[in-house]
Amino acid sequence: MAEQTPVFNRLALIGAGLIGSSIARAARERGLVRNIAASARTEATRKRVAELGIADDVFATNAEAAKGADLIIVCTPVGVCGAVAQEIASALKPGAVVSDVGSVKSAVLKDMAPHLPAKVHFVPAHPVAGTEHSGPDAGFAELFDNRWCILTPPPGADAGAVERLKKFWSGLGANVEIMDPLHHDMVLAITSHVPHLIAYNIVGTAAHLGEVTQSEVIKFSAGGFRDFTRIAASDPTMWRDVFLHNKDAVLEMLGRFSEDLSVLTRAIRFGDGKTLFDLFAHTRAIRRSIIEIGQETAEPDFGRQRKKNEPAVPIARPYASD
Amino acid sequence: MAEQTPVFNRLALIGAGLIGSSIARAARERGLVRNIAASARTEATRKRVAELGIADDVFATNAEAAKGADLIIVCTPVGVCGAVAQEIASALKPGAVVSDVGSVKSAVLKDMAPHLPAKVHFVPAHPVAGTEHSGPDAGFAELFDNRWCILTPPPGADAGAVERLKKFWSGLGANVEIMDPLHHDMVLAITSHVPHLIAYNIVGTAAHLGEVTQSEVIKFSAGGFRDFTRIAASDPTMWRDVFLHNKDAVLEMLGRFSEDLSVLTRAIRFGDGKTLFDLFAHTRAIRRSIIEIGQETAEPDFGRQRKKNEPAVPIARPYASD
Repeated sequence: MAEQTPVFNRLALIGAGLIGSSIARAARERGLVRNIAASARTEATRKRVAELGIADDVFATNAEAAKGADLIIVCTPVGVCGAVAQEIASALKPGAVVSDVGSVKSAVLKDMAPHLPAKVHFVPAHPVAGTEHSGPDAGFAELFDNRWCILTPPPGADAGAVERLKKFWSGLGANVEIMDPLHHDMVLAITSHVPHLIAYNIVGTAAHLGEVTQSEVIKFSAGGFRDFTRIAASDPTMWRDVFLHNKDAVLEMLGRFSEDLSVLTRAIRFGDGKTLFDLFAHTRAIRRSIIEIGQETAEPDFGRQRKKNEPAVPIARPYASD
Repeated sequence: MAEQTPVFNRLALIGAGLIGSSIARAARERGLVRNIAASARTEATRKRVAELGIADDVFATNAEAAKGADLIIVCTPVGVCGAVAQEIASALKPGAVVSDVGSVKSAVLKDMAPHLPAKVHFVPAHPVAGTEHSGPDAGFAELFDNRWCILTPPPGADAGAVERLKKFWSGLGANVEIMDPLHHDMVLAITSHVPHLIAYNIVGTAAHLGEVTQSEVIKFSAGGFRDFTRIAASDPTMWRDVFLHNKDAVLEMLGRFSEDLSVLTRAIRFGDGKTLFDLFAHTRAIRRSIIEIGQETAEPDFGRQRKKNEPAVPIARPYASD
């Protein structure tokens, strides 16, 4: 991506983990800001951020990082967003845009908004991107390329501020969508939160069986189980906070999931092959659509195991038996 | 892998889908057999197998393919294994080894054994390998490299026959393990069958919501959901048969999964962050072990989205926040 005119002068990142450090790398590489301040909770992370050279200034307190910034992005677990807003409130420059990257939006709005002064523009955001790794070393500039970033501006939000944040995220490589926070939380409950919960759950179930040893589970994981271990290796603090702060939508979607699983359980118990087959045939089409819109690789097995002498291209007839 | 002395003279593959065609490719490439016969149910598949040149002879009936073969591998969905055994029984050469590749072993043993003549050696097998794709085009010679192949010889099986089959699978690149069929079915229920069922289930749940449209599910799938669509794109017939033929072990493991999910649901409902955090922190270690024994890629996000200018190597501190 070519260098752009800076969208903001000074960017402050509250937290420099996977997401914060990826924003820093991409914003600098693509010329979206003139300089970058970052804060981190631990001395070790601050030292590492300084070594990596991804921020111009590294601070121990969030207020110092936020001071004088034109765009402040809170990149912490959602559980501390409210406390962070309180810490930075008095340091905020009039006209600054305050945002976040949390996977939950109603709770973030509710927790942060009361602490922020009227002179700043609060526009919550959620980049739907990540990996199972954490920390400043895990970030990379391409993380947001062709991923979606959902903005959930509160009613009456300043249109100019929303527009500039939109421009910033587009510059980072993302496709930007505006959404109502409650609807966001419902959409993400099914596309992200419940998938993470059931992945964590099955890995937990497998780890605590008597009949099957943990070493057998690990050894024979290529049968499907290992796919689940990837998202079940995601940051524990971040995900604990997601579930605690999107309770209603997650419980609603978990209810649907469990009802549907009961139907399949019953079909297995009574040997109803038709119910199983009909569902299994239908779900293939969903993956095909995700690949078609460029949100997933077309390579078999995520491209994990490439055929020898073969480039990373999809095979001609991926679902031959359809 | 270097060329080997052939382990069997003539190999017959009953079915030439993902697994059958991968065996054909690897066995030929690595010199494990002198010639290969294959049968396929449909004219289209037979034509394609002939075009691909992965078998020396392609037959419309299973008995013709099995005739004169020294190793016969049934590579069909497990639901038809019994019928296939019946079809090929009278064509089998004395001393031949009969095997299969089914993901379920007790049912295959029960369904096939009664039809097979005493003059042949029946040694069921299960290569724990695959992709979400089906058909002869989806196969590739490297599919079994560093994967496990589990043999479940019945009591009193001929040791020489087991040894030759073991040598054959080692030649295909697999690590071979001997297991009791009932134990196999329990291990695979948790490492493969239940993971597939819950993946199919969540994709089904997501596809049938009123509050969230299917296009939103597809668009924002990078939040975790898309991982599940890969195994939920697996062959519907094969998987229907797995669930119908491993009922007891699958229902047992599903029961454990559901109990554990109830505990997490309750923790979310009552805001018990400790229960969530403790599980989420524990599950990371399981993935690390799977990567360490070489059953999974160490690359973030399965290597789907590689950092620019960076080779396919793991980053130094994958779990920085531990």
